[in-house]
Amino acid sequence: MRQSSLFAPTLREAPSEAEAASHRLLLRAGMIRQTAAGVYTYLPLAWRVLRKLEQIVREEMDRTGAQELRMPSLQPAELWQESGRYGAYGPELVRLRDRHDREFALGPTHEEVVTALVRDELHSYRQLPMTLYQIQTKFRDERRPRYGLLRGREFLMKDAYSFDTGWDGLGDTYRRMHEAYERIFRRCGVDVRAVEADAGAIGGEGGTHEFMALADIGEDTIATCSHCGYAANLEKAEARAAVPEKEEPEEGELEERKPEKKEPEEGKAAKPAPAAEKIHTPGSRTVEQLAEAAGARAQDIIKTIVALADGKAVAILVRGDHEVSEIKVRSRLGAASLELADPETVARLTGCPVGYLGPVGMKLPLLVDHAVAAMNLGIAGAGEPDWHLRNVRPGRDFPLDAVGDFRQAQAGDACPRCDEGSLRFYRGIEVGQIFKLGTKYSAKLNAVFTNPEGQVEPVLMGCYGIGVSRLLSAVAEQHHDEAGLIWPWAVAPFHVHVVPVSVRDEVQMAAAESLYRTLTDSGVEVLMDDREERPGVKFKDADLLGIPIRIVIGKQAGEGLVEYKERNQAESAVVTAEEAADRIQARRNVS
Amino acid sequence: MRQSSLFAPTLREAPSEAEAASHRLLLRAGMIRQTAAGVYTYLPLAWRVLRKLEQIVREEMDRTGAQELRMPSLQPAELWQESGRYGAYGPELVRLRDRHDREFALGPTHEEVVTALVRDELHSYRQLPMTLYQIQTKFRDERRPRYGLLRGREFLMKDAYSFDTGWDGLGDTYRRMHEAYERIFRRCGVDVRAVEADAGAIGGEGGTHEFMALADIGEDTIATCSHCGYAANLEKAEARAAVPEKEEPEEGELEERKPEKKEPEEGKAAKPAPAAEKIHTPGSRTVEQLAEAAGARAQDIIKTIVALADGKAVAILVRGDHEVSEIKVRSRLGAASLELADPETVARLTGCPVGYLGPVGMKLPLLVDHAVAAMNLGIAGAGEPDWHLRNVRPGRDFPLDAVGDFRQAQAGDACPRCDEGSLRFYRGIEVGQIFKLGTKYSAKLNAVFTNPEGQVEPVLMGCYGIGVSRLLSAVAEQHHDEAGLIWPWAVAPFHVHVVPVSVRDEVQMAAAESLYRTLTDSGVEVLMDDREERPGVKFKDADLLGIPIRIVIGKQAGEGLVEYKERNQAESAVVTAEEAADRIQARRNVS
Repeated sequence: MRQSSLFAPTLREAPSEAEAASHRLLLRAGMIRQTAAGVYTYLPLAWRVLRKLEQIVREEMDRTGAQELRMPSLQPAELWQESGRYGAYGPELVRLRDRHDREFALGPTHEEVVTALVRDELHSYRQLPMTLYQIQTKFRDERRPRYGLLRGREFLMKDAYSFDTGWDGLGDTYRRMHEAYERIFRRCGVDVRAVEADAGAIGGEGGTHEFMALADIGEDTIATCSHCGYAANLEKAEARAAVPEKEEPEEGELEERKPEKKEPEEGKAAKPAPAAEKIHTPGSRTVEQLAEAAGARAQDIIKTIVALADGKAVAILVRGDHEVSEIKVRSRLGAASLELADPETVARLTGCPVGYLGPVGMKLPLLVDHAVAAMNLGIAGAGEPDWHLRNVRPGRDFPLDAVGDFRQAQAGDACPRCDEGSLRFYRGIEVGQIFKLGTKYSAKLNAVFTNPEGQVEPVLMGCYGIGVSRLLSAVAEQHHDEAGLIWPWAVAPFHVHVVPVSVRDEVQMAAAESLYRTLTDSGVEVLMDDREERPGVKFKDADLLGIPIRIVIGKQAGEGLVEYKERNQAESAVVTAEEAADRIQARRNVS
Repeated sequence: MRQSSLFAPTLREAPSEAEAASHRLLLRAGMIRQTAAGVYTYLPLAWRVLRKLEQIVREEMDRTGAQELRMPSLQPAELWQESGRYGAYGPELVRLRDRHDREFALGPTHEEVVTALVRDELHSYRQLPMTLYQIQTKFRDERRPRYGLLRGREFLMKDAYSFDTGWDGLGDTYRRMHEAYERIFRRCGVDVRAVEADAGAIGGEGGTHEFMALADIGEDTIATCSHCGYAANLEKAEARAAVPEKEEPEEGELEERKPEKKEPEEGKAAKPAPAAEKIHTPGSRTVEQLAEAAGARAQDIIKTIVALADGKAVAILVRGDHEVSEIKVRSRLGAASLELADPETVARLTGCPVGYLGPVGMKLPLLVDHAVAAMNLGIAGAGEPDWHLRNVRPGRDFPLDAVGDFRQAQAGDACPRCDEGSLRFYRGIEVGQIFKLGTKYSAKLNAVFTNPEGQVEPVLMGCYGIGVSRLLSAVAEQHHDEAGLIWPWAVAPFHVHVVPVSVRDEVQMAAAESLYRTLTDSGVEVLMDDREERPGVKFKDADLLGIPIRIVIGKQAGEGLVEYKERNQAESAVVTAEEAADRIQARRNVS
């Protein structure tokens, strides 16, 4: 294609609000434009990349035996009511009414539609297993669209749904999909980690993995063990149960780990723990202020957090140096939503302002993190303004009825799986997620089959997503430098950028046209910069667009010489046009 | 692919509400399923056909130099307000609000979005001409979804938008698109007629053509001349101005055509036309009743129709044997909408019930069709219940201030273009439409460029649509018989259907597997019916699915013989497997 007619309006500067490198460069390279917040137009170059990503996804899905189909975006609200998600999905679900005032959702995902489709056609175990997939535009009304295509409200997604007769079959399908995902991301040139994850709004009973493309801009944090293969999304990463404190801590001595719930310890009556006592702490509302005022460490303090789980208030206790994990609390309570209570709500529910809450005398149900339960004596709010309590003893001064893992893991935490490693943190972009749904949807929507014994059972389902437009951004995040994008061959919008320095020079143009034809005829995708621009502009644009190979045709064209340069290499070489064509074919064959 | 794992649930009977053959057969062949009224899931076989249709469209668009991109479905309402269509598009536009209560339209078409995109990037005539296109899911909240994919609320469409510096350039682009459309439909195997059409809600100043696939179920009527090349959508087809009646009609004598508006004729005072007189016509509300009661022909009667043009009432006069053309009236009045008034509204506006309305003394503005204006004396309502007037004389008894073509053309009408032909009618399915928009959108959205003289001008636009999912139905309408579908090779879901009669017969299965591999390796797409079903079921399904070539492998497999049959031929032949493979390759090469 000739660049003079290509619609790729490059920019010298990207809008200042573009924080992510991929967002900046895709804008600057004339590949995307914003139509509304979180809603983008993919211009021709980006569309070429997306079609190649799609094709890789399609080939690998087909290779697993999955069948492509296309379900509608307009989904009757009744289906979402059947699954129970119409309320639960919240404001991210785009809702609308048709001219007859019937309610519809605009598909963010298709579990309901596919389950209803299959239930109507599924009769016997003989029809199973089966996997269906589609590559489609999805809609999700994100609260905070950002980072260009990374968190958009309209995006391209591949979603697959599997149907098996039992957990073993689902396990096999899940493993095949996991392998297909590894191949897809490798072919697209994206470095990913598969991590244990939370099932979120999709739900399901059988576990889930996310595929995280490592990138500093990533909105997710992944925790990996320095020793074993453990890797999990931070929101899901297990925090190892803490070692209980000794009654009288002694340097260098470690006690064995004990059961979570601290029992009253007999045989220690000789040296009773001191009673809780009030300390006056005006102005000490934060952990830092309190630690300073009380001359204590953050890990000696018990934080009390009030949250609303599906609207019902609970108090969560974590150590002063720890953070509450909303996901873990939600999961323990089986709640669809969890919100931290605002100060007014806290005051209304407890009669005490934020900063002075404590577990002693607390009327709300208490959820106690392992690390708090393991404390000997701690400092906590007194439940009245300007006062805290010290020598608060878990189990004595407040009940340990609900102890569990309610905090976020921290870098340096001991690995929850092995005895040797500790957790390291990385930032990642979620580019895919796979779920063992089990019977979550099939039971609710009555998608059943008759087994060989003639009994009716719900079908076992899995679902498997890849964010195709997000993948475009992930490739850009992992493949760029300061001058622009550096596309991997397999997904590059064009393979070769032929740049005649002066389009008015007939010798240069003849050489360029000849090379263009030779390459194009052999199936190489060539962009020729036939624009009447200064060489500096052309080279800057070429670096920005990031086509893998650049052939500059300049003054030595008369001698049959051109400059060959790969975008990801610093050096270039002056070679004959034939040699350049050979090198391109060689480069193509290894890609 | 093996049919035992193909998700193509065939049906013996189609739901009785499926009126169109394509709808019935696509349902029965397990190719589509309805998710909501006018909203369908394309199952794997249909999706394969759609992808081939898409690819043909894409190749021909690329061949014209158009560039593919992808614009979003979520369109900010502000853009539609800028173009003035947010109100005018009516309830067919799907509207929604996001979580911040901002209004969006769900794209039925993308003139606004593409014009806004281009205006931001367009500076100079040097960037023109340019054509952009996309193949995308569109949304239109049809009042009455019907005929399966023919009139759906969510559908696949190719929409292209061209940008030129002037009308000449637009004319060239339009002609190239017209030619591309002819190639696309030919390659898809669809017989179409390009006809003059109405621009509808898209609008524009430069004319428009529809591409009509001939089919009995078609919702449009097209009028073509028996002699010249004239062809138009009935709603647009011109009705030739009628020859004025003679004062005293005489058998066999023809008068020359006269100007439309009848002038008072001098020199005829000797024989004045009789005055209008009331006749008592209780119960004669329809043309038929009145003709019977008054002993007259339908063409002697003047029908008076009250309609609301953008809410403003007008009375339209057409002959008793003619029908009002809403499109022509709307176009004459420059109105965005035209509705026939209901009986209550008619009574309120005129003080007279429907059936007795007449032009004499009518207070509403009168639009008089040519054929009425050409009448000598006619019969019309008297404007009071149970009475009509006879000897009503146009121009004498009511004014001829607004005479024009306000009726639908009729089969047998003289051709409006040539002197020899008459109009014939056919039913058609609109599968594409192309428009010269001119500056309709660029002027409103300020998409301008600087011309070589340094002056700023609005860009000239065209737009070009193809209903891709509708095209699937059109192919099915034109290619089927009573037993099922008959796919043209270029868009068939598979090319060859290999049907071993008994999957338990090892010889048959070995022959089938061998042929399957041979064909698949050579790039032929093969579906193998490896299901354990009775031969009758397999053959019925094969006819229903309509794959172009069927190879039955039965008892003669041991002798190396198979049955070769083309779906569109009655006869079959018993040949060797090698001969069958050769015939398939030969068939492929001519397709």
